[in-house]
Amino acid sequence: MADEVILLDYWPSMFGMRTRVALEEKNIKFDYREQDLFNKSPFLLEMNPVHKKIPVLIHNGKPVCESLIQVEYIDETWPGGNSFLPSDPYQRAQAKFWGDFIDKKVYGPTRLIWGAKGEEQEAGTKEFIEMLKMLESELGDKTYFGGETFGYVDIAMIGFYCWFDVLEKCGNFSIEAECPKLIAWAKRCMKRESVGKSLPNSDKITKFVPELKKKIGIE
Amino acid sequence: MADEVILLDYWPSMFGMRTRVALEEKNIKFDYREQDLFNKSPFLLEMNPVHKKIPVLIHNGKPVCESLIQVEYIDETWPGGNSFLPSDPYQRAQAKFWGDFIDKKVYGPTRLIWGAKGEEQEAGTKEFIEMLKMLESELGDKTYFGGETFGYVDIAMIGFYCWFDVLEKCGNFSIEAECPKLIAWAKRCMKRESVGKSLPNSDKITKFVPELKKKIGIE
Repeated sequence: MADEVILLDYWPSMFGMRTRVALEEKNIKFDYREQDLFNKSPFLLEMNPVHKKIPVLIHNGKPVCESLIQVEYIDETWPGGNSFLPSDPYQRAQAKFWGDFIDKKVYGPTRLIWGAKGEEQEAGTKEFIEMLKMLESELGDKTYFGGETFGYVDIAMIGFYCWFDVLEKCGNFSIEAECPKLIAWAKRCMKRESVGKSLPNSDKITKFVPELKKKIGIE
Repeated sequence: MADEVILLDYWPSMFGMRTRVALEEKNIKFDYREQDLFNKSPFLLEMNPVHKKIPVLIHNGKPVCESLIQVEYIDETWPGGNSFLPSDPYQRAQAKFWGDFIDKKVYGPTRLIWGAKGEEQEAGTKEFIEMLKMLESELGDKTYFGGETFGYVDIAMIGFYCWFDVLEKCGNFSIEAECPKLIAWAKRCMKRESVGKSLPNSDKITKFVPELKKKIGIE
């Protein structure tokens, strides 16, 4: 039976980008279905009734929700190519720790940088740089977070890269000045076909942010 | 080489309870070290410099942080006995989804029930019941969340059970009236030696909450 793979997604989502990159890495053809998050489709609500969020990966009719869970699912379902997670339990736990760190600690500050003003925005910027420095310290001089192989933590983080330009403009800071190794890592990742074709252009994100602020009523 | 397993924990933590239960399920002897979270030890800060939280599982000198990651680590490191996660990728993804759901949706409302008052407390109570009902619907008529085998989602949730009494008292509601199947599930779990010896008595939690409120300055 041919696999039917559908991805319910929204183009600027750094979470959706994870799943796109993971599918591309495994060379899985998928039916990308852009969602209107301001007018959610009955199909999205049916496929993710609990969180009502994208991305939703639907494999042969069965939905998998939450991007990092999707990345693991893709890795386990299509074992061809590089494994995203190492086989050693300790190394696996470390990779999962940093993926979870990105969700818990990196995402929040980004919203303050583009969505808040004044002190709140400054606090977001400070926090964001601090979190990026922790990631950079974990990366060290390695090619990818897991070493020589592009994997789980790279996939978890890379979608944020196309938001860097707009974050720098909003927060008035330079990520490269603070975290040069992290930028070099992102540029390495961008050379991969899977990443290059899954991430939108930074300019498109920069133009999108004022629209988004209007849509959610903060401008 | 004999394994050296240390657990940095705090007795009322439903997150720490997960790791205790998982270790007991695998019959792993461990050195339980109670932590003072209001005066964190240099060792805790060294072992979990990012989040500075318990539980920390230290296996042969190497720390693993975040309770659900620890549960998976324990499952992968000591494969004897029942596996906590099923082998089928889709079933695994579903189990991880519900573990993540408990962290994102169940924990927050519990804090409002014991820590807030008035409208905020009422909203927390309403939200908590709604989330428990979703869990109960996922449980259905199964013995455990994964079917016949006690596993990942059971371990993720069971620690909340010893907080139920105090939550009911604070929020003035009955969980059993709302979710009878969930209570029957919890009672089944409590009969397991691993759970019975890892969870503190409900009365101890009830006595602890007023102390906790004083400590964190909300009473």
